[in-house]
Parts: sequence; C-alpha cells; structure tokens
Amino acid sequence: VRTLKITLAYDGTAYVGWQRQAAGTSIQGLLEAAIARIEGEAATVTGAGRTDAGVHALGQVASVTVPSASSSIACDAYVRALNASLPEDVRVRAVEEAGDGFHARFSARAKTYRYRLTRGGVASPFESRYAWHVTHPLDVSAMRAALEACRGEHDFAAFQSTGTPVRDTVRTMLAARITEAPTPTLQVVEQSAPLLILELTGTGFLRHMVRAIAGTLVEIGRGRWPPSEMAAILASRDRARAGPTAPPQGLFLVSVDYPASPLGGVVEDHSARNGV
Amino acid sequence: VRTLKITLAYDGTAYVGWQRQAAGTSIQGLLEAAIARIEGEAATVTGAGRTDAGVHALGQVASVTVPSASSSIACDAYVRALNASLPEDVRVRAVEEAGDGFHARFSARAKTYRYRLTRGGVASPFESRYAWHVTHPLDVSAMRAALEACRGEHDFAAFQSTGTPVRDTVRTMLAARITEAPTPTLQVVEQSAPLLILELTGTGFLRHMVRAIAGTLVEIGRGRWPPSEMAAILASRDRARAGPTAPPQGLFLVSVDYPASPLGGVVEDHSARNGV
Repeated sequence: VRTLKITLAYDGTAYVGWQRQAAGTSIQGLLEAAIARIEGEAATVTGAGRTDAGVHALGQVASVTVPSASSSIACDAYVRALNASLPEDVRVRAVEEAGDGFHARFSARAKTYRYRLTRGGVASPFESRYAWHVTHPLDVSAMRAALEACRGEHDFAAFQSTGTPVRDTVRTMLAARITEAPTPTLQVVEQSAPLLILELTGTGFLRHMVRAIAGTLVEIGRGRWPPSEMAAILASRDRARAGPTAPPQGLFLVSVDYPASPLGGVVEDHSARNGV
Repeated sequence: VRTLKITLAYDGTAYVGWQRQAAGTSIQGLLEAAIARIEGEAATVTGAGRTDAGVHALGQVASVTVPSASSSIACDAYVRALNASLPEDVRVRAVEEAGDGFHARFSARAKTYRYRLTRGGVASPFESRYAWHVTHPLDVSAMRAALEACRGEHDFAAFQSTGTPVRDTVRTMLAARITEAPTPTLQVVEQSAPLLILELTGTGFLRHMVRAIAGTLVEIGRGRWPPSEMAAILASRDRARAGPTAPPQGLFLVSVDYPASPLGGVVEDHSARNGV
C-alpha cells in the first residue's frame, strides 16, 4: 500500500462541507471519486479539519491509503490527474508520499484558521462569499485586547457549538492575532475601513470554535461588552455567555502543521484534536 | 419626473448578463424590479454597458426616469432601499440626481474595462470566477509592445464579434496598459507569476472587443505571433485573423465617465458608443 498526503484549496460556497452527507456534494466525496477514477477502486480519505458548508480552505490536508499498484504514478502527475477530474473551485495543490502511519487528523500538530470581516456601509459584491460584512463600527483595539485572553491553554467549552459535546474541551491557542489587510484587488466599494482578519493557530479546535470567537469579538468591538468579558466567558465555560456564531463564509482553514519527518509524516504522537 | 444616475457593482457569475433575456435573471431585470418596488410602478433602466453573462462590474452606470412622486426619497435612502431588495452579489454604490437629458449610454464619454489573467500551474479556486487562468508562460513585454498598436483612433472591426455587425467600427482607445498586480488576498496557490491586468479606456467598445483583444494578446504573449501582428490584425479588419475571444469571467466594467455638469449629467453630445 501507499499513503498519500494531499493538500488542497477549495471555495466552499457550493458544497455541504468537507464531510460526506446523505444529500449534497461534499469535498471529501469529490476527492474520493477523483481518487477512485485514478485507482480503479473505492478510496476513503481523511481530512485534517471537517470544514462546514460554506467554509473555505487554502490548505486542507487529507490522507489516503491506495493500492501500491498506483506507485507508478508520480506525485506531480497525481496532482494533475486529480485536478483534471475535480471542479474548478476545488484544487489539489500538492500530493506527497507519506509514511504508513500518517493520518491527516491524528498526525496534525497544529491548525491555522483565518476569519475575514469586511466593514462599511455597502458590502462589496465580490466579498459576499468570502467574508462577514459588519456594518457597525468596530473598536479593533478592544477586540485585540479581548483576544489576548484566548492565548495559551484554556478550556474553550464556552465556544463549542451546543449539541456536539466533546469530553475534553481543553485546547492550546499557539497564536492569535487580528490584522488589517489592504483592500483586496476586487474590493471596489468605498469602505470606511480595511478588511479585518482574525488568525488563530491552535493544537485543535472545537466545533464552531473559531466562528464563536469571531462572533464574540464582534460583540466586544461593537462595544456591547468590555474586552475583559472574553476572560469571563472563557472561565464560565458557558456557551450562552459567548457571542453568536459568525457566519461560515468568512472562515478559511489556512494550513495544517505536521512534525517534520523524512517521509513527510510518520508520527507516534496522536495528540492533535479535531473540530472547526 | 426625476432622472436618477445609479452606479452599481455586481458579480456576474450567476446572471445572464446586464440585459433582460427571455430566460434567466439579468442585472437589468433585478434593478428594474427593485425600483418598481420603491416606485410602485414599472421602470425601465438603461445601462452604460451591456455586460455579457459571467462578466462583472465595479462601476456600471444605469439611468432611469421615475415619477416625481418619489422625490421625497433622498438619494442615500434610495441606495439603502435598492440594496435591501437586491441580492448580495449586486450592490448599488450610489444614486445621484441627474439632469433630464441624462442617458447612461448616450451621455457616456468613456468607459474603462479591466481583464484579469492568472498564471501558473494550479489555478486558485478563488479566482475561477474572476480571471482567465493561462497555463502557458507569457512574455509580458511582447504583450505590452503589441498593445501599443491599439492606442488612439482605429477601426476595430477585427475585434468585433461575428454576427453582430455595427456600421461604424471606429473607436478611440484613450488608454491601454498591462499591469502586474500583487497577489490577491485570497490567492493561495503558489503562482509562478503575479496576476496580469489589462486595462482599456475608450470612447466606446464593440461587442466582445475587450475579450478579443485579450485573447489576441495572449496569443502574442505565448509567442505564437510577434508583437507586430497586432497592427496587422487591426489593419486587416478581419475577425478571423485575431485571437480567440477570452472567457467572460475575467472581464470587469470598471467605470463610466461622463462630462462634468452641475446636475451630474445633462449632455448635448451623444457621441459615446456602446458595446462590450
């Protein structure tokens, strides 16, 4: 057998999310069908992050074990073959040989997510699929001060979507920052402020965690709560105290980090935790 | 009566184009329906440029004459009312009072179009709706040299789509340039080269003219023809000599210029010419 590490980018607008569903087209389903076309038999891929409907990826990582018969297909040819049968809004960026033990989810050491916010009176029609448009003025300094509380190891239960309990809700936020991006190329509508980008890197994320943090930061940015409320919400472990879940279209899975290894992935430490 | 000048931006992906068609949703139809909802009676709008299906606009301009009864609605309230009933991928940027004689098409003095090209091995999934992905290496200097021939007054018959003859095919290209844009915010796939942007400003454009020029420039950039071929194609007035019509999704109507006037538009000179 051969284990492949597949890095892909996709526009999630048209899909039900990463994971196969009873109805609708999933990214996982598309990728599995494309691999089956190459391999001549069914394949099951595992994704590092289960992105929801409308959520995008710049660097999702999937692992798959295929028959060794395909070993004759070099990795770069595999990229071309996959892209030839995938729709244009799903692109494979790289295919790499991985060690037998490589698992896109369990081998992951950290993930980085980005949440994009546009501001101002009239939203750009070119950002409606890729950002949350917030019309209220936002105090970015207050949002940055609040975000400080999320750094490091915390119990993030207050930011876990209800109805999907995970026993262990402790995660480590390795990096958290808010940056203001220059006007995107396609940004055409006069904005009162540049794009706001929330970027979080952590060992793992609970379901809807990034979006719940984004929604809470917007409440603080609007002045509904002081920056200190973020620490209080975390300490409460109560989802009802946090802000609303921000809409999916602003969220991007940016990258997944794995420990360096000669074969790109044999890892003993299965400690990374999953979620979006 | 009251004549309004409406500036709008739209993502053309989901639409049949600017103009009302027998089947499908048009931008014109959406705007007319939104105005009718405000005015309580049917309205007919005129667009400065008849963008095709899949073509976008950053600054399309439309004119409409409405009953004076609506005069109580201030322009900024009109913007909000229109946007409230338009889909998110069509946004009204401004509504202004125009003089009685203002006509979005006939009063226009110049239009600017932009055509976006992405390059490299794997296209970004986030550019598939907004650019033409060209995999061949392109000689940008050769393209720039060729574009020189398009500047000024010429008979552009060679760049007019077949089957839609216009008697007078002479137009004046006021500005023409090719720029390389920095990587867009959402550009995630490693590109071998930055985005290429062709920007043309002219007194008027024939149907498919920008796309035929873009398609011809790519043939020259690929090295199929020398830069001098552009002048020869223009002189031939023969559509069959020019390159293919570039795909619609790379094209943007950027802006429409009108002579300055106290009321924003009463113009006697109806010399601007239409087309895409």
